[in-house]
Amino acid sequence: MTRRVSINPRVSAVGGSTIRALHARRGQRSIDLGMGEPTLRPDVAHFEAASRWVAQHGCRYSSNAGEPELRAAIAEHYAYPALNRAENVCITTGSQEAVYVAMKTLLDPAHDEVLLVEPAFPVYGKIAEIEGIPVRRVVLEPEDDFAFDAERIIASIGPKTRMLVLCSPCNPTGRIIGTESVRRIAGDLGRRSGPPVYVLHDEIYREQRYVDDLGAFGNVYPWTIAVNSLSKSNALTGLRLGWAIGPAEVMPAIVKMHGWTTSCASTFAQRVAIEIFRTGALPAQREWYAAQREAVVELAREARFDFVVPEGAFYLCLNVHAADSLAFCHDLIDEHDVIAVPGSVFAASMEGWIRTSFVSPLDQISEGYRRIASLAALVAPA
Amino acid sequence: MTRRVSINPRVSAVGGSTIRALHARRGQRSIDLGMGEPTLRPDVAHFEAASRWVAQHGCRYSSNAGEPELRAAIAEHYAYPALNRAENVCITTGSQEAVYVAMKTLLDPAHDEVLLVEPAFPVYGKIAEIEGIPVRRVVLEPEDDFAFDAERIIASIGPKTRMLVLCSPCNPTGRIIGTESVRRIAGDLGRRSGPPVYVLHDEIYREQRYVDDLGAFGNVYPWTIAVNSLSKSNALTGLRLGWAIGPAEVMPAIVKMHGWTTSCASTFAQRVAIEIFRTGALPAQREWYAAQREAVVELAREARFDFVVPEGAFYLCLNVHAADSLAFCHDLIDEHDVIAVPGSVFAASMEGWIRTSFVSPLDQISEGYRRIASLAALVAPA
Repeated sequence: MTRRVSINPRVSAVGGSTIRALHARRGQRSIDLGMGEPTLRPDVAHFEAASRWVAQHGCRYSSNAGEPELRAAIAEHYAYPALNRAENVCITTGSQEAVYVAMKTLLDPAHDEVLLVEPAFPVYGKIAEIEGIPVRRVVLEPEDDFAFDAERIIASIGPKTRMLVLCSPCNPTGRIIGTESVRRIAGDLGRRSGPPVYVLHDEIYREQRYVDDLGAFGNVYPWTIAVNSLSKSNALTGLRLGWAIGPAEVMPAIVKMHGWTTSCASTFAQRVAIEIFRTGALPAQREWYAAQREAVVELAREARFDFVVPEGAFYLCLNVHAADSLAFCHDLIDEHDVIAVPGSVFAASMEGWIRTSFVSPLDQISEGYRRIASLAALVAPA
Repeated sequence: MTRRVSINPRVSAVGGSTIRALHARRGQRSIDLGMGEPTLRPDVAHFEAASRWVAQHGCRYSSNAGEPELRAAIAEHYAYPALNRAENVCITTGSQEAVYVAMKTLLDPAHDEVLLVEPAFPVYGKIAEIEGIPVRRVVLEPEDDFAFDAERIIASIGPKTRMLVLCSPCNPTGRIIGTESVRRIAGDLGRRSGPPVYVLHDEIYREQRYVDDLGAFGNVYPWTIAVNSLSKSNALTGLRLGWAIGPAEVMPAIVKMHGWTTSCASTFAQRVAIEIFRTGALPAQREWYAAQREAVVELAREARFDFVVPEGAFYLCLNVHAADSLAFCHDLIDEHDVIAVPGSVFAASMEGWIRTSFVSPLDQISEGYRRIASLAALVAPA
């Protein structure tokens, strides 16, 4: 069977996940600083509670939008003033589906443009590419430690920009957008005429935050789509339970598109989520991350790295001064059995950098940093 | 907030689920013959086994394509000659996502056309509409009891047809395509030049079959995409665990698209599935359906309905001779508190018919049939 097959050229053209491809090279003894997921264990009591519920009620479809009880719990927990009712929430198959469905539903490829705030997780750009949505980029710079620069973001909004996509706490940089920057951007958007410009605020690292000033578009901007999940907060990446919180005007369309994509989120996973919200377990693992972050910043200082101090998420980005960060990461695996993610997958401005995650045991991170430093010393400009 | 909002016109234009909308009208005491899901309970032992696995291993991402062990088990179980390896299988969020991702990946809206064999579950047409894929239809007729007519299906394949979509055992008709018809269609497709025409065979009702001659494209046609799930076989609609089995040439593209849509299927749900395949529990509920089908055919005969004897699935279609089957179904709720699904949502040739599911207790089905007959008597042509 070597016959030429026909495939949608949009899907052919888009790349797969570089991060997953690097991860696939991991060996038994590799030091893995590439992971985008927690190594902590989830609380199995939530699974047992959900199994008991299934024993009593079965495991039937929920409504497309999700269980009313969970939608209400999420709306109430985040309490975004204009988005605080159950009908503002759609439960999805992880935040990935929330992002996919929100971008697909709200952007018209024939007329609209999406503005990506980079460095950013590559998924936003890939989805835009698959859907044929034109992309504009505003790239945050290493000179500012990749800080969210409200003025530059505002200046980058074009006449066709219909959505701004931003992840804070940020994967990969670990930076957090502050309340004042959020207010400035929201203020500017609010003054524009015509149909509203949506802000897709990816909040998936919200529980991993190490500073007090946490900006949230949902607090001040009614055209926010806040996406989140239990994946990072509760070590439940494999549960595939996420959500989108958004304006009542657009949620029916988002729910409809979600329905045609996956019908509804898992009823079992929704019971786990109900249990987590009911027992207030969302921040249960926060202290571990805070301690880990403090220790890893100390390790990076000791290794004399040029790095960004993370304000959130569980990544620490190192400037290894590589001409080609992808080649650097392959060399790092080949020669030192350490996995890290090249900065170039997140933004042009991160070329030369790598992203390390700090979810592994500290002795492994320490040893990983030692090996990275030795490779970096070889490639660094004199 | 009554501001005009901007939404992707493709998503705006497509309708929501009529079936779900009718279902939403269900009251406490309604007789529900509208349901597209089992009323049996799933085996909670599978959930407990999966929870124990999570306690030991956590609940982390699987690879995009799914757990190798599950992919291998599925490939081996169905043993489709050209599609019998783990790499032929992608685990998805229910069969809904499998259908969505397969159609999206394999069809180029600019050049390809999809041929739907109707009556059919509306989802195929809705997905084509959202993706802008031109649709051609071959409509099976009530005079043939909606039998799959191989010659008519072959005659309907046009020069741009790149995919044929067919559900057997069929939702809604309950008809099954036989091995000889499958062989004829596959033979015709195999003789055509140019890129292969894919056959998307939706097999979700495979375990609910009441005749011996079960045609499966996977057995004879290498360009089959067989989609299926645990939803109907094991009363697990809420688990959202499905899969696509397809040619090795296209699976990497399908897996990639699946990755950008939902990342991966639930690791927990995959453990439940592994347990089901390991213990041979896939056909565990077949006898109940066979008994139920026998009883319900008897009820339909007693009520002197004009109906199609189901060969598979859990639906029995009745000709109620309504001029407008949607209006009939609304009247049925309003006046008799019975839920059924109008034939018109499945095909033009099913106008005047309704779909009843036979998953409710027999006394309820019997009472429901009594009420349907009394309403039908009012609307029937003299």
